[in-house]
Amino acid sequence: MLQAAEEIAKSLGEDAVTYDNDVLEHHGHSEWSTSNSPGRAVAVVYPKSTEDVSAIARICHRRNVPMVPFGAGSSVEGNFSQPHSGICIDFSFMDQIVAFHPDDMDVVVQPGVNWMDLNKRIASSGLFAPMDPSPTATVGGMVSTNCSGTNAFRYGTMKDWVLNLTVVLADGSVIKTRRRPRKTSAGYNLTGLFVGAEGTLGMVTEATLKLAPIPQDTSVAVVSFPSIHAAAAAATTLIRSGIPLAALEIMDEQQMAILNAHGSATVRKRHWAEQPTLFLKFSGTTAAVQSDAARTAALIQQSVGDSGSSTFHVAGSRQEEADLWAARKESLFTMTSTRPAGYEMWSTDVAVPVSRLAEMIAWSQAECGKLGIFSSVIGHVGDGNFHVAMIYDPRDAVQKAAVAGCVHRMMGKALELEGTVSGEHAIGIGKKDCLRDELGEETIGVMRALKRAVDPKGVMNPGKVFD
Amino acid sequence: MLQAAEEIAKSLGEDAVTYDNDVLEHHGHSEWSTSNSPGRAVAVVYPKSTEDVSAIARICHRRNVPMVPFGAGSSVEGNFSQPHSGICIDFSFMDQIVAFHPDDMDVVVQPGVNWMDLNKRIASSGLFAPMDPSPTATVGGMVSTNCSGTNAFRYGTMKDWVLNLTVVLADGSVIKTRRRPRKTSAGYNLTGLFVGAEGTLGMVTEATLKLAPIPQDTSVAVVSFPSIHAAAAAATTLIRSGIPLAALEIMDEQQMAILNAHGSATVRKRHWAEQPTLFLKFSGTTAAVQSDAARTAALIQQSVGDSGSSTFHVAGSRQEEADLWAARKESLFTMTSTRPAGYEMWSTDVAVPVSRLAEMIAWSQAECGKLGIFSSVIGHVGDGNFHVAMIYDPRDAVQKAAVAGCVHRMMGKALELEGTVSGEHAIGIGKKDCLRDELGEETIGVMRALKRAVDPKGVMNPGKVFD
Repeated sequence: MLQAAEEIAKSLGEDAVTYDNDVLEHHGHSEWSTSNSPGRAVAVVYPKSTEDVSAIARICHRRNVPMVPFGAGSSVEGNFSQPHSGICIDFSFMDQIVAFHPDDMDVVVQPGVNWMDLNKRIASSGLFAPMDPSPTATVGGMVSTNCSGTNAFRYGTMKDWVLNLTVVLADGSVIKTRRRPRKTSAGYNLTGLFVGAEGTLGMVTEATLKLAPIPQDTSVAVVSFPSIHAAAAAATTLIRSGIPLAALEIMDEQQMAILNAHGSATVRKRHWAEQPTLFLKFSGTTAAVQSDAARTAALIQQSVGDSGSSTFHVAGSRQEEADLWAARKESLFTMTSTRPAGYEMWSTDVAVPVSRLAEMIAWSQAECGKLGIFSSVIGHVGDGNFHVAMIYDPRDAVQKAAVAGCVHRMMGKALELEGTVSGEHAIGIGKKDCLRDELGEETIGVMRALKRAVDPKGVMNPGKVFD
Repeated sequence: MLQAAEEIAKSLGEDAVTYDNDVLEHHGHSEWSTSNSPGRAVAVVYPKSTEDVSAIARICHRRNVPMVPFGAGSSVEGNFSQPHSGICIDFSFMDQIVAFHPDDMDVVVQPGVNWMDLNKRIASSGLFAPMDPSPTATVGGMVSTNCSGTNAFRYGTMKDWVLNLTVVLADGSVIKTRRRPRKTSAGYNLTGLFVGAEGTLGMVTEATLKLAPIPQDTSVAVVSFPSIHAAAAAATTLIRSGIPLAALEIMDEQQMAILNAHGSATVRKRHWAEQPTLFLKFSGTTAAVQSDAARTAALIQQSVGDSGSSTFHVAGSRQEEADLWAARKESLFTMTSTRPAGYEMWSTDVAVPVSRLAEMIAWSQAECGKLGIFSSVIGHVGDGNFHVAMIYDPRDAVQKAAVAGCVHRMMGKALELEGTVSGEHAIGIGKKDCLRDELGEETIGVMRALKRAVDPKGVMNPGKVFD
């Protein structure tokens, strides 16, 4: 492995390779992640072009050395862990916008581009890339985990926004999955196969992303409910209504209590009802936003019924709109910044058919509640997808095992309800067993056959997704 | 091959197999298709269940007999041709709705379900499956060609509406690609790989489709322009505006002239301006429809400028709305029903980035015009996708060769403009060379490797997509 690193240094230059322990540690372990492996890469390398990545792959392939691509390090299932050591490929220096085609509503970017930065740079065109995962995420990782976020209810997931990919395969060969038109039925959908493959089939070195027009106007509303069931039922009604909500999110009473106790990094202090709360975003023309908000309020009233006591509050100003949304968007950071020293957060996600959501959330709340530690539900209720976050003491082996057991049971419950063990975090090393439970050995067998077809030596991000 | 058919008859019953020449001919040749092969299957078999399909595959696989799945026979690139003979599997008897989940907005269907029939049967729920290819198309074929139609501008293509598939692989093993939640990032996107694979990777025996809420209200407008350039430019402006049009279609002056000369099957006679015309559909709340139509009219006026003479006409009644849309939707039938006896229609499609659309359409019009035969442009301009239809005499070898040459040059032009050789008809046997030109040998090589991984004997719909 070290010889491979030395050969890469010879090919790309000494600056392109580091053996620094702190760097290796940073690239091999994440405190955001629920799953980490003790393995570490022997070196981190920094390509600057597709050609560099191809050279790295040719060297590693010849020497049977594992390659682990690394984006922003914000994934949470050990997706960039190095259980088999190898070479870690960091795409930080491939952070250029290659071509911007506003008339075609697409942009060609390198994998190291951060999505928020991209959106800032193209904002004057009236266009944006709609996926909104972790603020630090970069395009390569977003592609590899098929990420989404709060905008998925309106805009779908990452796979819906990638037009084509340039991919370096395990042996260093370079392919482009397709061209630039918004629509095609020409040949196999390779783009869709590499999206969500977690770097196990190849390394993305360029991506053409579809862009959406920035809506003319937006608004945000919050609605609190007497129970999580009432909140989920109202969400189902809204989904069925066809009102084109921009986002439909949930935070439970625990999470709302955190807001009252600690506020948020950028949000002005306000008193929140400590009840299950829906966060709604509206977007479109000003008239549509107003009409959608009014229809939404009426439907919620109807859903809750006479006995209900939901409160529907629409932001009265741009500042309040930003505040309300930040309260949702920053909830993960609020939690981590307020946890006791030495404690870690276990954040997991599942998705179920929408009709099973209320049952799934209630079950998760009850199960996690039994642990006697802080836990909360936050999520993309519009997609039937939500996160459970638990704050635990990793030095307490019993507690850690209890958390892991709870997560495992939660996965089982999601599957019982025809759901998935990962709505948007992917599988990594953390959920391989769960994936087998979800899909069965024959389906995994097909995935394995596809993997072998493009990476017969098994050197691309080994040990991830399935064994 | 005959032994395989006999073995299938033994396993499924005599009724499930036919050797009738008329049936074989109907399943091996299509006058709708631009590509037909002289080969014919030795038998057509009619499974009734996934188990039947699995039994067929096990028998054919053991005997190395090609399997060619057959849906409605409405594909146009020879996608169900049998160049290597074999067994044709007709899914007509697998036409059941397996489960309808209105609360989850999805439906589980067998591949023989017709999409219009499906939409009629679930209409009372307020939901619909939004893809609208040929009226005769069935779900299996729609999945296999990654079909779309006029609704793609708003709703995307088939791949965006398939939640999971049950697939019988070449050796008879059965997999389910994933479960039912609307969102997942668990494992490889097998669903997306089988969609658009044209039956070369396996046979779809069940599909779970996402459904959309039927819009509260709709309207249709037609706008005629002095030139195809002006029409395409206005279309680009509309796409960029973010107005959520339900459809954005184009018909050129030739096609409009056909309407005046022959009318349409269901459309009342009216006088159409024989100019390039955009057909627009609006949908949403009544207020949104009105506001979108008004904004659209203003934007078109702005796009055409002072010198322009576009006419914007919104349907004044439900009847007129239906008439206007039928004129677009039935244009292909209008053309085929009015062609001279013995003549055939060559219908091809390309898609290019939207900014190249005006150039592509103008080029195609000019090239086809040189042939001295009837040709017209119809298309999904909102997606940068359009069809050229040419009416020619297949008995005239010189004319036929000229048409084929023109189509070939058109593919070359589309590629020069970063487009695709197939927006929605897929590759079949007709466009294999073009696909290689589009993607290159290395990308095709990856497709070939994937195919080999799941069908090492090459018995699933052989000779399609690539060689």
